[in-house]
Amino acid sequence: MAEELSLLGMWASPFSCRVKIALKLKVVQYKYVEEDLFNKSPLLLKYNPIDKKVPVLVHNGNPLLESLVILEYIDETWQGYPIFPKDPYERAVARFWAKFIDDKLLPAIRRACWGEEKGREKAVEEATELLQLLEMELKEKRFFGGETIGLVDIVADTLSLWLTSFEEGSGVELMTREKFPKLSKWSHEFASTSAVKENLPPKDELTVFLKSLFGKPAK
Amino acid sequence: MAEELSLLGMWASPFSCRVKIALKLKVVQYKYVEEDLFNKSPLLLKYNPIDKKVPVLVHNGNPLLESLVILEYIDETWQGYPIFPKDPYERAVARFWAKFIDDKLLPAIRRACWGEEKGREKAVEEATELLQLLEMELKEKRFFGGETIGLVDIVADTLSLWLTSFEEGSGVELMTREKFPKLSKWSHEFASTSAVKENLPPKDELTVFLKSLFGKPAK
Repeated sequence: MAEELSLLGMWASPFSCRVKIALKLKVVQYKYVEEDLFNKSPLLLKYNPIDKKVPVLVHNGNPLLESLVILEYIDETWQGYPIFPKDPYERAVARFWAKFIDDKLLPAIRRACWGEEKGREKAVEEATELLQLLEMELKEKRFFGGETIGLVDIVADTLSLWLTSFEEGSGVELMTREKFPKLSKWSHEFASTSAVKENLPPKDELTVFLKSLFGKPAK
Repeated sequence: MAEELSLLGMWASPFSCRVKIALKLKVVQYKYVEEDLFNKSPLLLKYNPIDKKVPVLVHNGNPLLESLVILEYIDETWQGYPIFPKDPYERAVARFWAKFIDDKLLPAIRRACWGEEKGREKAVEEATELLQLLEMELKEKRFFGGETIGLVDIVADTLSLWLTSFEEGSGVELMTREKFPKLSKWSHEFASTSAVKENLPPKDELTVFLKSLFGKPAK
């Protein structure tokens, strides 16, 4: 039986983008299905009735949900490019930072850029502190994964293109080159990697879309 | 070199309890260090400077943070009892439900039992809907892991003892036998399993502690 692989995604979603990058690194072919978040397809509702969110990876009829879970599955299912480190402790460290980005950093960035005006200053401070921890974790490495991109780099995709669009859309500056020289360099290198580059959405359209989604006028 | 393994935990934490159960299932010896959350030890601050939370598992000097990450590490490091399913798709499904419990269900239960009075009814409804999804996922199985307990059972430990204490402390009834016959049966069977039983905190003390922590008088 031929392998069937589809990805239900959305062009502006950094979570969908993670899966696209991982599949590209693994050199795995798949059918891409673009979802309209304001008019969700019967396929999405069927495969993810719980929260009806993208990305959903469907492998031989089996739906996989949640980008972090999907990345684990991709690395376990297809050989070739290693997304997770081999050593169990290094793998645990990578999983910790992936969770840190999703559970702590991204909500903090969202509050800093699009949260209520009165709590804005504190939110910017919090997001800055969390970014500082990630800056330290990069150490002298080119990527979080070392010489090549790995799990944490892929999960941190939001910090490359999306954060710039967030900043432009909201007028809040978070990850400046002066404050975060390592992350800024990483961001540039990451976005220049071929597997990443060809899967990133067009920046201007993304800025307009995010601004309309979060509803705050640019300053 | 002899293996060094310590767990920094707290008696009333369901997250610490997960790690205790997993180590017991793997028949791994470790040194347990009880943390006082109101007076955190230098060891905890050293090993988890990011959010200073338990559990922290320290293996040969390497700190591991976040209970889900620790459970993955335990299963990868020690042979014997399998905590995660072998099949990659089943493993992904288990990871999804573990994440569902932590990211969606537990916050909903907390809001339902201890959230603001005015949003209480809606919060109870939300928690009930999420519990219903878990009830369905049990199907006709004895445990989420099948005939023996696995990742999802361990992560769902909060639903056995803690939820009862939450309910008694807050006066909110969520997981009744009538509404959730499968989960109720599961809860009883899970708590009766020897690896679980000997690691659960004493119920009355837990109820008093949780009530004092969340600050709502019993009805």
